[in-house]
Amino acid sequence: MKFTINRSRFIQELQTVQRAISTKTTIPILTGVKIELNQEGLNLTGSNADISIETFLAADDEKAELQINQTGTIVLQARFFSEIIRRLPENTFTLEVQENHQVLITSGAAHFTVNGLDADNYPHLPVVEEQNQLKLPVHMLTKLIGETVFSVSQHESRPILTGVHFTMSNGQLLAVATDSHRLSQRVVPIENSNNDFDIVIPGKSLVELSRSLSDEEAEVEISIMENQVLFKTPTMYFYSRLLEGNYPDTNRLIPSSFNTELTFSVPTFLAAIERASLLSHEGRNNIVRLAIADNSVILYGNSPEIGKVEEELVYEQVSGDPLEISFNPDYMKDALRAFGDMSIKIQFISAIRPFTLEPSEGDVSFIQLITPVRTN
Amino acid sequence: MKFTINRSRFIQELQTVQRAISTKTTIPILTGVKIELNQEGLNLTGSNADISIETFLAADDEKAELQINQTGTIVLQARFFSEIIRRLPENTFTLEVQENHQVLITSGAAHFTVNGLDADNYPHLPVVEEQNQLKLPVHMLTKLIGETVFSVSQHESRPILTGVHFTMSNGQLLAVATDSHRLSQRVVPIENSNNDFDIVIPGKSLVELSRSLSDEEAEVEISIMENQVLFKTPTMYFYSRLLEGNYPDTNRLIPSSFNTELTFSVPTFLAAIERASLLSHEGRNNIVRLAIADNSVILYGNSPEIGKVEEELVYEQVSGDPLEISFNPDYMKDALRAFGDMSIKIQFISAIRPFTLEPSEGDVSFIQLITPVRTN
Repeated sequence: MKFTINRSRFIQELQTVQRAISTKTTIPILTGVKIELNQEGLNLTGSNADISIETFLAADDEKAELQINQTGTIVLQARFFSEIIRRLPENTFTLEVQENHQVLITSGAAHFTVNGLDADNYPHLPVVEEQNQLKLPVHMLTKLIGETVFSVSQHESRPILTGVHFTMSNGQLLAVATDSHRLSQRVVPIENSNNDFDIVIPGKSLVELSRSLSDEEAEVEISIMENQVLFKTPTMYFYSRLLEGNYPDTNRLIPSSFNTELTFSVPTFLAAIERASLLSHEGRNNIVRLAIADNSVILYGNSPEIGKVEEELVYEQVSGDPLEISFNPDYMKDALRAFGDMSIKIQFISAIRPFTLEPSEGDVSFIQLITPVRTN
Repeated sequence: MKFTINRSRFIQELQTVQRAISTKTTIPILTGVKIELNQEGLNLTGSNADISIETFLAADDEKAELQINQTGTIVLQARFFSEIIRRLPENTFTLEVQENHQVLITSGAAHFTVNGLDADNYPHLPVVEEQNQLKLPVHMLTKLIGETVFSVSQHESRPILTGVHFTMSNGQLLAVATDSHRLSQRVVPIENSNNDFDIVIPGKSLVELSRSLSDEEAEVEISIMENQVLFKTPTMYFYSRLLEGNYPDTNRLIPSSFNTELTFSVPTFLAAIERASLLSHEGRNNIVRLAIADNSVILYGNSPEIGKVEEELVYEQVSGDPLEISFNPDYMKDALRAFGDMSIKIQFISAIRPFTLEPSEGDVSFIQLITPVRTN
């Protein structure tokens, strides 16, 4: 294998596959990036136990300035390789595989000779049977992930809760995440959906997927296999394993009747929550208290060592019964950030029942639920 | 005490004194910032075992919008206080000391009540006898620090080497730092110097001092006391303890005759050293090798696991005996960075004797010395 390529274009591709490469893996060859050159272009592959990423750089990509001298394949230790490429002196570099998997990297007067690994020993990526296909615009997929993935459990005690539950049925895609203290749910209408499915994708995979998708205009093609899911764009294949097991039924968790309703603008409420949580973070229980009355909404936070804060909140509308309720401000912060700059409503039943957040206008395609903390 | 002040102007002052405040101190009151308000303006003080910083914000500072309602003094836990101030909703805030050292902080609808400490228990700063005074432009002092402080020892085995040695005599200020593997030395002519002195200032103090000095045009007034040094600007007093003990005689270390001389531009040489050190960092000995011949200068780096690099360097001039010499590339990087974008010369005696770096033109007011590594 021998080729010359534009350095910064190559670094872009390398960064993408590096998301899948861990330095901590127990399988040495997986610390490497697989480089494969054929007449169509250059493929880079990175993989770990959970995800695999393969990028494709076409031979006629203008920015890549790719010159193919000889096709072939090699695996190079990813971290070093990337540091070397970053520090090369010229805008392009030449990579040539020599004897015994030695690789010569040349740029200007700098000559690196690094030890490569036989690409024959690199694990094969899952074979994709084209079934259960679904197409989504990239921006819709990344929004869906951003609105739900923060609610997945961070603990392995119930592994199934570390993923986001995707269900496709009746022309609707439902995404749900919960760590059993809070829940996020988004519904997206899907046109031309072929097959129904019910899968759980690890939250960490979705975070990496979101970061790897850059082209806001493009579409992602999603293929679901027995224990894998593949996200396909014109320049990238992103594989993730699926979580095994039954996801709990979350439908029954979302209440349908309420006694108190509060409408407000997200940014001002979020800023107040952030202030109150400064003190609650120091307390033994990380909680803040919200007191809702006919004509005032007051937020309280305190820490015995440091002090206390109280703030009268600016709201748009309040109705129903007066209420005092305590909750973890970090759950509230995550939930509010997922809405962004808009007006939302919170609906409460009582101080001990979960409450919901949704946009104050429009249909209920996005809902978040937080369980309060009992204080007595 | 009660005052109202512009939030961002106050945060600036707080950031400066926070450089002296450690959260790890065993003396609880030193985790606090001392706030003192009198008719002239507002003083903030932070202190730890090594340095103390006092800032002064004049009552007539326009950006501060200071309204003095009642003078007084209090100590507030610095980390929380600063986080609270940062998150307040309005451009100004009001701080009022209430009963039992409780402090009410108000901004818009947000009301914080935090526990303060009696300022009478805050340690007194050293009393400055106005002796051994010296005036330096800020830009000259920060340059002097930047050119030497990286060579101080990071180990406490010889505490005196963790400081920079400043000697004032014959109208010249000499600053020297060495960790016994490399040395940095700068000479600055001083006009109107009153007294000679010989002190060692901790490297860490100098780094914080450098960061605290912002006004490039201003002058710093330096006062030296028995075991303290004070750096005074119109808006800040910066105290540091001095290191006790005798600094080694470093004059005899700098050689005066050479057998090989190499002249080059710093940025290209630095980039090559950075490439070579990528591999040397992985080896057991962190060394690179420089081979100087009549008509070529080649830099080598290698790591048995990863690979090797060689690069023919672009130089301006080479003269004297051919030489192969090995050294720690990190020392070379630090030294080169201290020169910036200029042309410098390296002068060698032999592969086992320290070599020196200095600007290729001008007087020898700045010199750096690196001890090579014997490879056989």
